[in-house]
Amino acid sequence: MYNFQTVLIADRSAHPERSNATLERVIEVLENVLGADFATHRDNLTRLTANLPLRQAVNAEQAGKISTYLSEQPFHPDQIFAIYQQLSYAEISTAEAIDLHREYKIPVSRLEDDLIPVKGEGSWVMDSKGRWYLDMDSNYSATNMGMNNPEIATGLFNQANLIISMKEDRVQIARSRFLKEIHQMMPSGLTQFYWQNSGGEAVDKSLKIAKAYTGTTQVIAFKEGFHGRTHGAVAVTWNEKYRKPFGLHNLDWVQFAEFNNIDDVKRIMDKTGAKIVILEMVQGEEAGNRPATQKFVDALWELVHSRGGVIIDDEVQAGFGRTALKEGDWFACMSYGVVPDLMAIGKAFGGGYPVTAVVTNKEISAAMKPGFDGSTFGGNPMAMTAALIATRQHRDRNITKNVIERSKQIFEGLEALRRKHPVMKEIQGRGLMFGFSVGSNANVVKLQDELRNEHIKVSLATAEWLRFLPLTIISKGEVAFYLQALDKALSKIN
Amino acid sequence: MYNFQTVLIADRSAHPERSNATLERVIEVLENVLGADFATHRDNLTRLTANLPLRQAVNAEQAGKISTYLSEQPFHPDQIFAIYQQLSYAEISTAEAIDLHREYKIPVSRLEDDLIPVKGEGSWVMDSKGRWYLDMDSNYSATNMGMNNPEIATGLFNQANLIISMKEDRVQIARSRFLKEIHQMMPSGLTQFYWQNSGGEAVDKSLKIAKAYTGTTQVIAFKEGFHGRTHGAVAVTWNEKYRKPFGLHNLDWVQFAEFNNIDDVKRIMDKTGAKIVILEMVQGEEAGNRPATQKFVDALWELVHSRGGVIIDDEVQAGFGRTALKEGDWFACMSYGVVPDLMAIGKAFGGGYPVTAVVTNKEISAAMKPGFDGSTFGGNPMAMTAALIATRQHRDRNITKNVIERSKQIFEGLEALRRKHPVMKEIQGRGLMFGFSVGSNANVVKLQDELRNEHIKVSLATAEWLRFLPLTIISKGEVAFYLQALDKALSKIN
Repeated sequence: MYNFQTVLIADRSAHPERSNATLERVIEVLENVLGADFATHRDNLTRLTANLPLRQAVNAEQAGKISTYLSEQPFHPDQIFAIYQQLSYAEISTAEAIDLHREYKIPVSRLEDDLIPVKGEGSWVMDSKGRWYLDMDSNYSATNMGMNNPEIATGLFNQANLIISMKEDRVQIARSRFLKEIHQMMPSGLTQFYWQNSGGEAVDKSLKIAKAYTGTTQVIAFKEGFHGRTHGAVAVTWNEKYRKPFGLHNLDWVQFAEFNNIDDVKRIMDKTGAKIVILEMVQGEEAGNRPATQKFVDALWELVHSRGGVIIDDEVQAGFGRTALKEGDWFACMSYGVVPDLMAIGKAFGGGYPVTAVVTNKEISAAMKPGFDGSTFGGNPMAMTAALIATRQHRDRNITKNVIERSKQIFEGLEALRRKHPVMKEIQGRGLMFGFSVGSNANVVKLQDELRNEHIKVSLATAEWLRFLPLTIISKGEVAFYLQALDKALSKIN
Repeated sequence: MYNFQTVLIADRSAHPERSNATLERVIEVLENVLGADFATHRDNLTRLTANLPLRQAVNAEQAGKISTYLSEQPFHPDQIFAIYQQLSYAEISTAEAIDLHREYKIPVSRLEDDLIPVKGEGSWVMDSKGRWYLDMDSNYSATNMGMNNPEIATGLFNQANLIISMKEDRVQIARSRFLKEIHQMMPSGLTQFYWQNSGGEAVDKSLKIAKAYTGTTQVIAFKEGFHGRTHGAVAVTWNEKYRKPFGLHNLDWVQFAEFNNIDDVKRIMDKTGAKIVILEMVQGEEAGNRPATQKFVDALWELVHSRGGVIIDDEVQAGFGRTALKEGDWFACMSYGVVPDLMAIGKAFGGGYPVTAVVTNKEISAAMKPGFDGSTFGGNPMAMTAALIATRQHRDRNITKNVIERSKQIFEGLEALRRKHPVMKEIQGRGLMFGFSVGSNANVVKLQDELRNEHIKVSLATAEWLRFLPLTIISKGEVAFYLQALDKALSKIN
């Protein structure tokens, strides 16, 4: 049926990204597929390969022995297929992957080792144990168009065979294609682009451009706002534990106002003369996905512009239809009926490829002069290829319509579950950016565990809030599966 | 011979990154290939397609007419091949690509529109006019392993079909592969990784980690140093015109010392108590590729460490063998016989994919705690696939050996040219990171133009210095071609 040799030994020309398999991974896959029966095979394979260390990549001779052994077993064709498939997705064992991360990764964040996704398909991921999960994180929206993306794979393959990178200041064909098409998705007047690689960078550069344009440096950001991790982006991020270790907690150029409180903004403007305001229209990370009120947004736009200031709208998570209220609302600001002066976009922008951008109007753009910035990778041809394809996918798949329909389905379902399960407290959000509270962080952890048992992958939380960012391509059936799983999981933590 | 329809109409499944061709591009390609003879065809095609605007993508019917017309002409097979090839590389005209950039790109940098590379092959690029150039910029080292990279193309294609992105905090297989192999290239003791997307981000995060570890914020950077463009990176970059428009020119936490002057470093340390020093071992951007002296490096390492400080070595441009003096010198610090406390790496790291990293030792790494940082794209599976393949390519191709041999060839060649051409003044550099001065910026511009006529692409300059960063795979014949072209070009500007 299958020649196991081809997944044990990496074929450099077909799979330059792989290594030879380890015996530990072979044994793990047998356990995944055969259950308790794997033990005999483990013992046999260990004997067969003599002194081979479990985590050393097999050589051709050892692979031959393992392959022959496996081909001699009376496995069911489903088992053979599953063994072959799982080995083709990963040749390193789960335990070794986790150990390598623990050993060599700078621990800037909590290591998520509860499951290791090895294969995506639409909204689903299979983990290294062969189990499928509905992904309700979407890598913070980065993979909204699919956990894998065959079309972008093809586009990147073609582009890397032509020109794999080109610096930001040089005219490029892939970027011209993008510029010819993108304007139909952008808020009116936001026609000017500067590309970056991460959301934090896009925010950092938005601040630079706003400073250059206004000739001022005072910035107002919001409590419970989150904007990224570079010096500039973290400076305007509210959570002090993200700033204090780096001496970025008492900066003279940033003040934090109460969200949805125009008087507090006015108070700070009066005090500092700030002309730059940065906000998320729907506060993500730190507020469990809380939308701004329409009243606040209207008042903020009026206030800031009446004083000659500029508003930076950080749409890195909320953008590309996630928070749509009506069809064509590609950015949250469009639902609110306002146009920001600068907008930071990212995540879904590249369908998973690291590409972000600052978008602004012609007047502000003109404040930037050659030499003011520059970038090796910003807007490189691979990034522009990914962005072109991802943005076409958004339009072709009518994502804003799907978000509106699935959002209705979700909020109705959540309300019904709240009536049934008292542990569920508040629900908040907009579109497919939502969360609910469960009274305590202990309950959050318990519920996440139960959801994992029900084939739901969810890792985002803020204090007693679970946050969900499903892929914006999520289907009606998948939402129903999520709600059904949530019902079961909630029953277990009451 | 060829069906032109296939390059006029984008086949979405085979080329999701393309659009349909414009008539303007068809006419341009005919001019590229046929020279003055193109005019008749231009007139005929314009008539044939009636009122089609030159920059509107053709539809199937129009493409059919153009394709039929072209197939009826008595073109030489070389011409047919060239027309087909050039249309397959770009379906948008040079003039339109330039106009789109002028119209919609935020002008943060000087727009380079002298040529538009559409197809790379090793050290060479073909531009939209069908002319080949030896690339002596390498996108600041990003494309050291080739202006195109078929092996990385295949790896990225495979990975995007599995999992196209995964957030930084989750254990991943592609990253485990990388971690299992990378240590053989790293300076001794620098075992801990945190991945980012741009060089500026890696520097920005290096500073954060150094601040968290030392519990201090005072930093010493160097005059004529360049480290990137985020708030943190630009703060330690010397050129005031990169900082002043953003109010980052009078920061209380950064002081600039004279490069290669240990007394100046000592003076500032005494004054500010700084425990963090950041430098490039070979100053690029702002100093025309000037190496630190061995004496200075030894004294700096002694001084900083005697006071319990840390040194951040920015190897974003110099790393991955570019400045090797002996085989296996993958980073500049290795040639100097020192190990920094933190190292920022990038560019060549991903073979053109935007991936960079902070690398440090276990003690400093341990100062970072979960929550201190985080990243959506940092160390994603596509980035790790590109980095794995690119670093394997460096080792398989014995790049440090090539750098040493080609560097000798270049410096000997440059010395000979200097004796012959008085306009050539000083020569400086290390490995394949070098430059020479020609007395004035006007001469720089003239020489760049003449070099372009001689099929050499070079766009890097600092005041009266031309800077060169050839691909580190550059061959003996290509270096000879460069030196010969330089000889001709210099003859014309004397």
